[in-house]
Parts: sequence; structure tokens; C-alpha cells
Amino acid sequence: MLAASASLLAVAPAHAGDLATTAAALRDKALADSTAWDVVESLTTEIGPRPTGSPAAARARDWAVAKFKALGFENVKVEPFETRSWLRGQESAEVVAPYPQPLHILGLGGSAQTPKGGLEAEVALFKSLAELQAQPPGALTGKIVVVTEKMTRTMDGSGYGAINPLRTLGPIEASKRGAVAYLHRSLSTDDTRLPHTGAMRPWGDVKPIPAAALSTPDAELLEHLAARGQPVRIKLSMTSTVLEKAPAWNVSGEIRGSEAPDEVIIIGGHLDSWDPGTGAIDDGAGVAITTAAAKLIGELPKHPRRTIRVVMWGSEEQGGAGEAYAAAHKDELPKVVLVGESDEGAGRIWKVALPKGAAGAPQMKTFASVLPPLKAFVADDPSRFGGSDVFPMVMAGAPVVDMQQDASRYFDWHHSADDTLDKIDPGEMAQNVAAWASFLYIVADSDIDFRALSAEAK
Amino acid sequence: MLAASASLLAVAPAHAGDLATTAAALRDKALADSTAWDVVESLTTEIGPRPTGSPAAARARDWAVAKFKALGFENVKVEPFETRSWLRGQESAEVVAPYPQPLHILGLGGSAQTPKGGLEAEVALFKSLAELQAQPPGALTGKIVVVTEKMTRTMDGSGYGAINPLRTLGPIEASKRGAVAYLHRSLSTDDTRLPHTGAMRPWGDVKPIPAAALSTPDAELLEHLAARGQPVRIKLSMTSTVLEKAPAWNVSGEIRGSEAPDEVIIIGGHLDSWDPGTGAIDDGAGVAITTAAAKLIGELPKHPRRTIRVVMWGSEEQGGAGEAYAAAHKDELPKVVLVGESDEGAGRIWKVALPKGAAGAPQMKTFASVLPPLKAFVADDPSRFGGSDVFPMVMAGAPVVDMQQDASRYFDWHHSADDTLDKIDPGEMAQNVAAWASFLYIVADSDIDFRALSAEAK
Repeated sequence: MLAASASLLAVAPAHAGDLATTAAALRDKALADSTAWDVVESLTTEIGPRPTGSPAAARARDWAVAKFKALGFENVKVEPFETRSWLRGQESAEVVAPYPQPLHILGLGGSAQTPKGGLEAEVALFKSLAELQAQPPGALTGKIVVVTEKMTRTMDGSGYGAINPLRTLGPIEASKRGAVAYLHRSLSTDDTRLPHTGAMRPWGDVKPIPAAALSTPDAELLEHLAARGQPVRIKLSMTSTVLEKAPAWNVSGEIRGSEAPDEVIIIGGHLDSWDPGTGAIDDGAGVAITTAAAKLIGELPKHPRRTIRVVMWGSEEQGGAGEAYAAAHKDELPKVVLVGESDEGAGRIWKVALPKGAAGAPQMKTFASVLPPLKAFVADDPSRFGGSDVFPMVMAGAPVVDMQQDASRYFDWHHSADDTLDKIDPGEMAQNVAAWASFLYIVADSDIDFRALSAEAK
Repeated sequence: MLAASASLLAVAPAHAGDLATTAAALRDKALADSTAWDVVESLTTEIGPRPTGSPAAARARDWAVAKFKALGFENVKVEPFETRSWLRGQESAEVVAPYPQPLHILGLGGSAQTPKGGLEAEVALFKSLAELQAQPPGALTGKIVVVTEKMTRTMDGSGYGAINPLRTLGPIEASKRGAVAYLHRSLSTDDTRLPHTGAMRPWGDVKPIPAAALSTPDAELLEHLAARGQPVRIKLSMTSTVLEKAPAWNVSGEIRGSEAPDEVIIIGGHLDSWDPGTGAIDDGAGVAITTAAAKLIGELPKHPRRTIRVVMWGSEEQGGAGEAYAAAHKDELPKVVLVGESDEGAGRIWKVALPKGAAGAPQMKTFASVLPPLKAFVADDPSRFGGSDVFPMVMAGAPVVDMQQDASRYFDWHHSADDTLDKIDPGEMAQNVAAWASFLYIVADSDIDFRALSAEAK
């Protein structure tokens, strides 16, 4: 039904056969192309960890400019902005009673520091955030709250969304009840001794306290200790630096459109990373996939009608990049055909969600026809999010695509020291490039109007 | 043929049917028993890492005495000895050129310290130990040698033996050629950012240099850096303490024999561990498995004929425990029926190697008859090693059993921070206890003479 009404609006391109042929050729070329691998290998080897506000973030900016130019992108731009940055200092934690044991922790972005020399307190352990939230005000005064709730492994990444408040809200809930520090089981599906960091929500008017993630085995050790019924005491020491106005940059390059260059498709990944790993899957992969897809299209004998712009956003983990980009490009927004971001690792794409009403358009049927060899399909449900860096544009009305990746293993490594190049399967990453390249080409070389299709579908 | 001749010597016990029935009952009881899990849970939770010479090693000694007594063992003994101990201090490493990146390392037991403030030098990278060994004397003067040879995953653990010289001999080979430090890819089959430590051979008359293991992703990062052809420089800082005569203890308990208590079966695991993990698979599991097996036998209405002694050896990782034990029990050796050690983790037993000539003895045929439900079998080849802590007794003539465990995943965690309780599958550990308990009972409640069987088989 949607398809039928949408087809009334969508103008079938004169060269529908060409679209399909070229999209399939791009798909097959991408599967055998090493550009994405080369890009992420370069970024992880030559820059490594690059949190917002770090010297490496500035080196990453220069790397991005050089990489765009080397790969033949036009109109390469650096757009500076300022954002808040939390930078890790020294961190240590240990059980001091009843049985001394070292603990492996990583502070959360936004954590307070401990007093100089650290703090020591008794543990109050809860198996879930809900258990913590059931405690009355003041009930945890002077305690180190530990919450050991487990994350569920899912293909679509929804297990992360479900557990997210454990990291982002938990410290605030603990502080509200009088806790002096907060430790939680990492938002992770692995069983290594490596904790997984991440940002938390702003404290608002709640007193900031030290907050950190425990590795999975450390969280379980604390459960075993707590089960003995004796008081468990932890000593914690954490330092950090906060830059209220850290310099940051969104870097972009274009494959300029041959006929309607002002009509722009904006895609990309984020250039910043958390500090423990080398930012391979989060989000070197996304930067590499979208750059490689656009570069392959740029190598065609003739550029497609519309412009494809790849953006390497400069502060996703601690926020600010997407908001800065949307604000800077407000006037351009009506000409933005579509936005999309690759920020779920390097696992294969298995489902593509399109803007409401678009799936029935002939161009998107053409796209659906090139997907089967990639073992991916077009979703029944419409796209919604795109990614943190494009979402402010989506909120402002930009149509969005969700290329959903298999995230089954993504949260084994995400935000931990294990986010390294070896976790990327080159074949799976190439499958991503193939899906993006064929999709982007079809959108760029047609006049499909996602806004109109969505309006019609309402 | 061996079986035929062996059966001439072996005296079939009057109660062969009883042996089989009781062994099978023990096997089935062990599969449903949680003692081994409880023991390793207790050791890892209440003691944690316990390297030779550390305060935790002394706490582990007291834990062992208390545990033996609580489980009903008799004749609980602490036998002190002294051995050399290397204790880790502060360690850090980073690439400083051409691209700064932090590295994850763990010093090797026996490593020298760096000069105060650390050392910085250019890398000479080799893909194998053989490549390093092909370098002429002096060729690596002033260099930090990096060797990135990979370990092979095997079920029988032989991949570890094959790669072992990379850790134990590599530092010496590097120093001989003038290197100022040595880094090697961890002896590991995993891909986490956690390095795997271990001991190296004595330096002899070679100049000691700092030596450390890199995590797998760090070794690969250095390969990627080196492939660019620019000089790679690393800054390294390592401190450590050496105790030439660290106090250590072998702790033992017995299930005393009812008829021939002087005839002793000596089994066990080692109580010490490396420092990064909690010593769950290496070797809390072995301590737990052998203790649980003996304890189950001790609960029978009547103890078997011979004594079963469980020893928790006090310094396997850095050596000395087995030598001290063999020396202290030299006079007892002729009465030692059999020795064995569980020191390969908690993976299931899949093959049991018996002393030469023993497989055909009726008691061992009885043992073979209880194995099929455990999915294990008696090996064609005779036993050889037993374990580091019993090998000095084997060298002195003691018959030995090799209960070969599935080591497919053991080296993912071995000697790293990932050696934690969660890596143990309680069902697989119970299978170990079942095999040990049924075997020990048959040997202890018969008069099988392994020495005579082996002599006959020659």
C-alpha cells in the first residue's frame, strides 16, 4: 500500500537500467577493493586513540585532510567547533577487605575525581539498576555503590540501548542516595579483564562523584566477595582533566555532483575515539567504509548527478559534533537529500531501513535488487536515527538511512582497549562498502525525493 | 602384545567387580558434586593472585591448611622451602616515533629493570625467533628487539611447547646480539589487549636486559608500524624486585590408606600463580580438581587400601617446588605408587596416558571401562611428564599418569589478567574430578604395581 502510493510520486529515472547495472558493478568492485581497510589501518596505526581535546585529535584532523585529498575528494573542509572534553588521568582500584585484590576499572567520561590520595569506603552491591533505584534517599550515604547488571548480546545492538542507563544514569542515582562513588559492570558482552568506558549524562544539580566501569570478571569477583556477607571495602583513586571548551573539528570532502551539485547526500563516521583502544571499530571502520564507498563512486567515468559529502565528525563520544554540524549547515538543510552514518563497527550490514514511504520507489526497488548477493534486505520499518552525528539534522527534517550492521560482537570490544584493528574482518567491512556504494550511487544519480515520498506516505 | 605380557604380572584383585562398581559410582557422584568449584571459588575470591614471595602466597598457605582440614583430610602438612622469586614493579611502554601510541606489556619473570626513567631505542622487528637467531653477534646493538611469531591453537597444548623458546630463550638471544631490551608477542591464542607473562630461562653469563610480552594487538600494531619503513622508537620503563631466597611452602593432606597406608599416590596442583589474574585456571583448577577427587574417596564408608596424598605445590611458575618436594621425600620414593598433577586448566580430560605396560592390567581395563561416559579414553602412548611439580619424582623413577585436558582455550587466558574464575566451566571441571576420582580409587584400592608392569614391558 505504501509502495503503491509512493510510486505515484517517484519519477522513474530515464536510465533505470543504467542505475541497476552501475550499482551492481560498484557493489562487486567494492567487495574486491581494499580502500576501507587501508583507511582504517592508516588511522589506527598512525593516530591511534584520539579523544576529543587530546593532541591526537588534532593529528587526526590533519590525517583526515590528507586522506581526503589523497583519495581524490574535492572541496575538503575543516570546520572547527568547541565542546566539553573529559580526559582520563591516573586510575586505580583495589579491594582492601575482607580479602585484598586488585580491580580493573576505567573511569567514565564525566566522572568526578577522588580526593587526593583516593577514597576508601564500604561497598553496597546491587544486581540491577532497578535495585539501586529502589533505595530511599540517604540510604547509601558514604557507600561505594556497585551494580553488576548484565548486558544481553543481540544482533541489532538493542541490548546496549537497554542497559545504557546503567552507565549514563547510574552514577547520578547513586549520588542522589548519598554514595561517595559508583562502579558498574561494563556495558559489554565479553568476559575479558578489560573494562569498557563511555560517557555519562550531565550531573545537573546532583553532586558529582567518581564513577567507573569494572571489567566483567571484576564485577563477578565483587559479587563473590559480597556473597560472603562480610563488609567489602574498596580503595579508589581517580584523576581527570575537564576542558570546558576543547577545540574540535568536523572534516569533510566531496564527490561533487555532475548536474545538481547543490543537492547533497551527507554521510560519514566519527573521527574521535575513546582512549583505551585505537578506535578501529568505533569508529575508524565507519570513517573508512563511507570514505571508501564515496571514493569508488568518484572513480566512475562520470560523477553522479548529486554531490556525495563524507564527513568525519570530530566529537561523537563526548558529543557536540552533530549539533555543531547541523547548526553550521542549517541553511543548506533543504538541499540535503539524505543523511546517514556508519557507527556500529565493521560487522556486515544485514538490514537497510529507508525513510518512510521510500521502499516502494523504483530507485529503491533497484537498490533492493542489488542487495541479495550481500545477504541484506530492505527493512519493513522506516529509518529513524542514522547515528548520533546526523541525528540533529534528522530532527531538523533531513531524510535518513539506517544501514543496520550485525552488532553481535561489537560490544565485546566497544569503548575498551580491545577496540583494535585485528577485530575488523576485511571481508565484512568490504560488504559494508558494497552496500553503501550501490545505495549512494542510486540516490546520487537519480532525482528521488525522500521528503516528498515521506509526506505522501503519512 | 603389551597388554598380554602385562597381564601376567598384574594380580587381578579379588574384588574386581567392586572396583568397577565403586569407580563408576564415584564418577557419577563427582559429576554432580560442587566441591571443586567451591574450592577454586574460595581460592580465587579469598586469595586471588599469589606469586611466590608475595604476601598473598603466605595467605594461600594458610588457606590451604584450613581447606584441607575443613574437607576432612588427615596428616595436613606444611613443608617450607626457599626459592628465587621475581616480583613485578611498575611497567609501561609506548611508541614515541613515528607515531605515538601506548603499548600494553607485562614483564617476564627474570627480566632486568630499565635504567631509572626508562630507556628509549629503535626497534628491530622479526617475524620469528629463527629470524632473530639468524642475526650475527653485535648486529642488534642498542636496539629493542621485537619478535611477533604466532602461537598455534591446539587441543593437546603442544602449540605452547613449540613457541615456548620465544619467551624463555628469546631475551637471551637478543641480549647476545647487543639488544637493550626484548619484546615478544604473547604466548597466547587470544586477540585481547591483555599480555601474557611467564618465566624465562636463567641469563647465565649473558647480560640481563628488560624483557616483556606484548598483547597480540600490540604486536600487530608494531608490525603495521614497522611495515612503513620508518624507524620505530619505543620508550620502555620497568621495575621489579628479586628475592633470592623467597619463603615458599608445599602444603599436603592425605586420605590415609586402610591397609597399606605407607604406599602413597601423590597428586595435586600448584598453589602459586602469576600476578595478573586470580590464578583460576592456572592452577586453582588443578588444586580444586585433585582435592575434590580425593575428598570424594575419603567419604567412602571405608578408605581404599593405599594412601592418597594431595599436594598443593608452592612455586611452580618460578620453579623450585617440585625439586624441593622430591628432595624432601627421597626416602619415601620406593613406596610412591604413582604421581600425577592437574595443571592444564579446567577443560575436560580427553585422554589418559598410563605408565608403560599398564594399559593391559586388569585394574586399568576396569578404569578404561568407566571412561566412555566421560568421553575420554586410554592413550596408546605411555605417560611421560605428569607436570612440573611431579617431574623431579618422575625423573627419580616414580610412575606417572598424564590426564590430558582439552587445552584448546587454555592459552587464551594462561598467565594473563584473564585467568579468572568465570573462565572455568563447572561441568567440564566436574568431568575432571570424575576421571581422577575413579582412577585414584582403582589405583588406591588395588595392589597394581606400575614399576613392575613397566619393567616387564621393556
